[in-house]
Amino acid sequence: MVRASGRKADETREIKIIPNYLAYAEGSCMISFGKTKILCAATIEDKIPAFLKGSGYGWISAEYSLLPRATQTRSDREAVRGKQSGRTQEIQRLIGRSLRASLDLATFGERQLKVDCDVIQADGGTRTASICGACVAVGLAIRKMQFKHNPFKHLVGAISCGIINDRVVIDLDYMEDSQAQVDANFVMVDTGELVEVQATGEKGVFTDDQLAEMICCARRGVQQIFKLQKDILLQ
Amino acid sequence: MVRASGRKADETREIKIIPNYLAYAEGSCMISFGKTKILCAATIEDKIPAFLKGSGYGWISAEYSLLPRATQTRSDREAVRGKQSGRTQEIQRLIGRSLRASLDLATFGERQLKVDCDVIQADGGTRTASICGACVAVGLAIRKMQFKHNPFKHLVGAISCGIINDRVVIDLDYMEDSQAQVDANFVMVDTGELVEVQATGEKGVFTDDQLAEMICCARRGVQQIFKLQKDILLQ
Amino acid sequence: MVRASGRKADETREIKIIPNYLAYAEGSCMISFGKTKILCAATIEDKIPAFLKGSGYGWISAEYSLLPRATQTRSDREAVRGKQSGRTQEIQRLIGRSLRASLDLATFGERQLKVDCDVIQADGGTRTASICGACVAVGLAIRKMQFKHNPFKHLVGAISCGIINDRVVIDLDYMEDSQAQVDANFVMVDTGELVEVQATGEKGVFTDDQLAEMICCARRGVQQIFKLQKDILLQ
Amino acid sequence: MVRASGRKADETREIKIIPNYLAYAEGSCMISFGKTKILCAATIEDKIPAFLKGSGYGWISAEYSLLPRATQTRSDREAVRGKQSGRTQEIQRLIGRSLRASLDLATFGERQLKVDCDVIQADGGTRTASICGACVAVGLAIRKMQFKHNPFKHLVGAISCGIINDRVVIDLDYMEDSQAQVDANFVMVDTGELVEVQATGEKGVFTDDQLAEMICCARRGVQQIFKLQKDILLQ
Amino acid sequence: MVRASGRKADETREIKIIPNYLAYAEGSCMISFGKTKILCAATIEDKIPAFLKGSGYGWISAEYSLLPRATQTRSDREAVRGKQSGRTQEIQRLIGRSLRASLDLATFGERQLKVDCDVIQADGGTRTASICGACVAVGLAIRKMQFKHNPFKHLVGAISCGIINDRVVIDLDYMEDSQAQVDANFVMVDTGELVEVQATGEKGVFTDDQLAEMICCARRGVQQIFKLQKDILLQ
Amino acid sequence: MVRASGRKADETREIKIIPNYLAYAEGSCMISFGKTKILCAATIEDKIPAFLKGSGYGWISAEYSLLPRATQTRSDREAVRGKQSGRTQEIQRLIGRSLRASLDLATFGERQLKVDCDVIQADGGTRTASICGACVAVGLAIRKMQFKHNPFKHLVGAISCGIINDRVVIDLDYMEDSQAQVDANFVMVDTGELVEVQATGEKGVFTDDQLAEMICCARRGVQQIFKLQKDILLQ
Repeated sequence: MVRASGRKADETREIKIIPNYLAYAEGSCMISFGKTKILCAATIEDKIPAFLKGSGYGWISAEYSLLPRATQTRSDREAVRGKQSGRTQEIQRLIGRSLRASLDLATFGERQLKVDCDVIQADGGTRTASICGACVAVGLAIRKMQFKHNPFKHLVGAISCGIINDRVVIDLDYMEDSQAQVDANFVMVDTGELVEVQATGEKGVFTDDQLAEMICCARRGVQQIFKLQKDILLQ
Repeated sequence: MVRASGRKADETREIKIIPNYLAYAEGSCMISFGKTKILCAATIEDKIPAFLKGSGYGWISAEYSLLPRATQTRSDREAVRGKQSGRTQEIQRLIGRSLRASLDLATFGERQLKVDCDVIQADGGTRTASICGACVAVGLAIRKMQFKHNPFKHLVGAISCGIINDRVVIDLDYMEDSQAQVDANFVMVDTGELVEVQATGEKGVFTDDQLAEMICCARRGVQQIFKLQKDILLQ
Repeated sequence: MVRASGRKADETREIKIIPNYLAYAEGSCMISFGKTKILCAATIEDKIPAFLKGSGYGWISAEYSLLPRATQTRSDREAVRGKQSGRTQEIQRLIGRSLRASLDLATFGERQLKVDCDVIQADGGTRTASICGACVAVGLAIRKMQFKHNPFKHLVGAISCGIINDRVVIDLDYMEDSQAQVDANFVMVDTGELVEVQATGEKGVFTDDQLAEMICCARRGVQQIFKLQKDILLQ
Repeated sequence: MVRASGRKADETREIKIIPNYLAYAEGSCMISFGKTKILCAATIEDKIPAFLKGSGYGWISAEYSLLPRATQTRSDREAVRGKQSGRTQEIQRLIGRSLRASLDLATFGERQLKVDCDVIQADGGTRTASICGACVAVGLAIRKMQFKHNPFKHLVGAISCGIINDRVVIDLDYMEDSQAQVDANFVMVDTGELVEVQATGEKGVFTDDQLAEMICCARRGVQQIFKLQKDILLQ
Repeated sequence: MVRASGRKADETREIKIIPNYLAYAEGSCMISFGKTKILCAATIEDKIPAFLKGSGYGWISAEYSLLPRATQTRSDREAVRGKQSGRTQEIQRLIGRSLRASLDLATFGERQLKVDCDVIQADGGTRTASICGACVAVGLAIRKMQFKHNPFKHLVGAISCGIINDRVVIDLDYMEDSQAQVDANFVMVDTGELVEVQATGEKGVFTDDQLAEMICCARRGVQQIFKLQKDILLQ
Repeated sequence: MVRASGRKADETREIKIIPNYLAYAEGSCMISFGKTKILCAATIEDKIPAFLKGSGYGWISAEYSLLPRATQTRSDREAVRGKQSGRTQEIQRLIGRSLRASLDLATFGERQLKVDCDVIQADGGTRTASICGACVAVGLAIRKMQFKHNPFKHLVGAISCGIINDRVVIDLDYMEDSQAQVDANFVMVDTGELVEVQATGEKGVFTDDQLAEMICCARRGVQQIFKLQKDILLQ
């Protein structure tokens, strides 16, 4: 099978991460997967959600937004429509859950990390790229705080997978995404275990074997992301 | 391991489906998994979403809501707060996607099936129970329309799984749900294939083997649901 | 005159009340008037409205909602539209006011009773049925609290009346409701006095005599409701 | 009994109506009952609600609003809070229903009359005063249209009543209103029949006789309003 | 050049201010510029915005609204649409800023003056007329408080200017406003200095000289307003 | 006087414009004034506002938004709060008006240009920088359309001015902005004429001479912007 881009089935697009992209955020980066481009900014705040007050635990949450002209045709601004779409909320909940695997919230203190993922340009895979970039922004923000016991536990990486013409491919661009029978996202930690699996038969169903194959393929692809994250965070 | 309820790891709660619970809906049922109780109602409308106009294709979507006193403590009414929560939207998107596996939208005509899943009582597993009940409501509504070529393709069933103390269990109640390390939902068709997999490491990560074990366990549990659905829809 | 249902002018539909319908609510019931079916749930909360803080007084309020497929054709969900309609707000204000006649708020303590009336199926008379069911839910919730001095003062019952072809009838179903010249709702306590009178000349005007006749007719009908309420609350 | 104002039980405050208060509205007036002061403006539009399209029938509806400083202490602006309160919606629905008794909607054509009632100053009785003023605004707007067959059927008048210290009084000011055991509003046409009755036992219950006494008292009070309306509309 | 109204280029419409128009507001007036008519009401509240708590400083803000039938054709009520328009917010921010030049907020104490400007009738120039009237309402409210050291520093006046057919005119009515190439508003204090300048080339651009000419012309026009304000506030 | 940055009174920060920053927008650029950084994207759509339908005229409008972490401390996302702030709406109205001076809307056809200005980083002067960048995005989009008669009339530039310690300075950064007595924004076309003047005495008043001095100073500063715009648009 030949992908339109000429990529092999398990080949990702070029991935780049520019750390400290913003002057004011506690941690930030611009991450790109080919044409997909996301600005991730981490903020540390002292106020935490009501359900954690007095618990000693910290919290991480995320917000996600698509700039109106990130996409091929302009999409309406959610602030103008007066609410975030279901898709936006689903994605920001996923990013938040994924990041909670990166930190030991028990030793983070009663603080909240908020990560803003603003999609500058969207060519498929924005939710997984957001997770990868957000992890870097979190790591940079944590480093700046100089904890005695570093609460940062795990790198968290994510990648999309899909089945097109019954073949598993990774890191789908927008065109591929719209053709896929099955669409999946995998979030993993750097020890190789899974944090989140989401697989949907958009235009068909899938077998256990196909799911297993997608996971394998994703696991290989995520290695590159961990390498880029380490180059920035462990330097 | 002993579950608080005395159930075995792969034992579901008592599942009941009362078909045609409502007088006016084209199809409806009340489904219960133990104390969890959901009213599912299918409506067939002639207007479809703008992106399908003129395509000849039909559409299915779902709405989900928790009655304020479905839960142990009262939760605010979304109509009063002025918007649906992220959780609500995520769930209704999942139900809609799952149901799209049940129908051949190409032969359904330019119609829309809307399924309302209103949770009367919530004791865990409301999203999977909603999918199971919604499939029955859809089947009953389709039957009433007397299509020449029946567009109903597949029964769709769903069940929750989780990992508690490193053991896989299915059909978690609310108490178990709040203790689980990993929380998963599996949607399948009656041929055994997967429609949707969602697995989250709420309090930890998980391995490929654990995911595979959960899928096996879920597949056994879903059989009961298919049996109940068939008893109603094929009678 | 013959009513389509064969009922006599002062004959109600079959009225049933299933107490303790819900597992978690402090008090609850499912009430039905023929096909009209409403789930009423009472919650006791410690926080009261700002204007009562420090007064020693308690409060009762109600919320009302129609499930989307309670009606013959589906109505939009208010949580999706982003606000409660004027009709909904008018009804829940009426239910709240009516219930305030049932309790001695001075001895109830700085607590709030919230009653949720969710219409499962609507065939006319949902606001009066809600009041009748809500009173039972309140009574059951109060009983559970074991007050030294019972603050429950009065049973509150309500019934709709109308004028069709110049004849007074009670407990109109949806079809009758849409034909009525005059549409009225009467709320009474078990001593026979009036709590609220609402009469509207939807398609015409009415005389003092007609109003008096409607009140008489309603008072007879409400007796049955008081009997059902007593059977549950005084057992 | 002496009322704080020195008024007799069945004595209204001074009522004044200034017709054509606005330069642009099709019909308008400023109506005052003592310190209560309301600007009523009628607009005739060609578009009607969807449910009437093609029916040949017209429609009347009303909107009601309290200017922030109409009241003794400032109340928040509903446009700032982002929605109309339940009280506002209840009142504007009442005004609309009442006005529908004034016009023959079958001969009015597929048009809509919208009446805006903006409370400049509020000292009790704003909903009944709104109805009285709105009727004048409607009458003036109708006159300007020069119908062949005048669709204006009836003058509509309204007045508030209440029971204070077990005595019936009419046209309560704000102070009286907050003390009343029973609070009622009566809407009538100039032939003496009733259009709408709303009576609420705010702090107690009431008997049939008390209701009848309130209606009598209101009917006398409304005569003055009909006189003022006639002076303007029949000149 | 002849203006449609017969006014000279630097001639304002008839300006009238009726002080103490409302019974309850701390300060109020009805101001009119020809057919433009605005009700201004000042309220003094003890709570101030969060950013000023503990600062010892006071605050002034304004709200602005157009009654639906202030205009030639009815405009929708912002409370019904659920939000204030951009135009409304822009105007109320301008009024608030302008009024801050009138008071010494350092000696006003931790209080907030809120000024409501409700446009009863709109024939152009509503924002400048609002500023002129609001200043009177503020002055009257301040006088009632009997400060030891009067915090009222300056009269604030405002007037609109425009360029029509390359000629500068002041106090444009609605018709002129819609023809103007350039539309400007000037806010000044009674010592002659500028508080705010807003000039927009709606249908063209303008030169420094034209701007200077508009300022001169506006300064002459504002003198009349200061005279009327003084007559009321210094009496 | 020495500015904290060492800049001279009439010296701007370093201004850079990266054209075609986005892959999908019809025209786009990233513009920076020192640390202030704004992404401008122009979209051409076929639907125009209702008031222009059938007129033959086109339209330009703008939307503006601050990314949450553009600022020193995180600001809430407007899509989460559910509405755009007054400040946001005021700015996007200003940008839209300013851009209307750049195009001949009569020859542009019944099309709409929407320009999105998303502030990536904010250090003062975001509204004027947005105008400068938006003009480039518009110019690039127009060029791509290959009009027979180019509707692009004028370059539009803008710069902020202020008075600090009684001295006029231009292009204030955030720190200077918060100290300024007077805050002004000037929008001009490349022929030197004014499109919009906004000057506000935030902490004091100002004279005609000071206004004139600010305009002169701004006119010199805007020359640099026109030069950068020309280098991109006329190449």
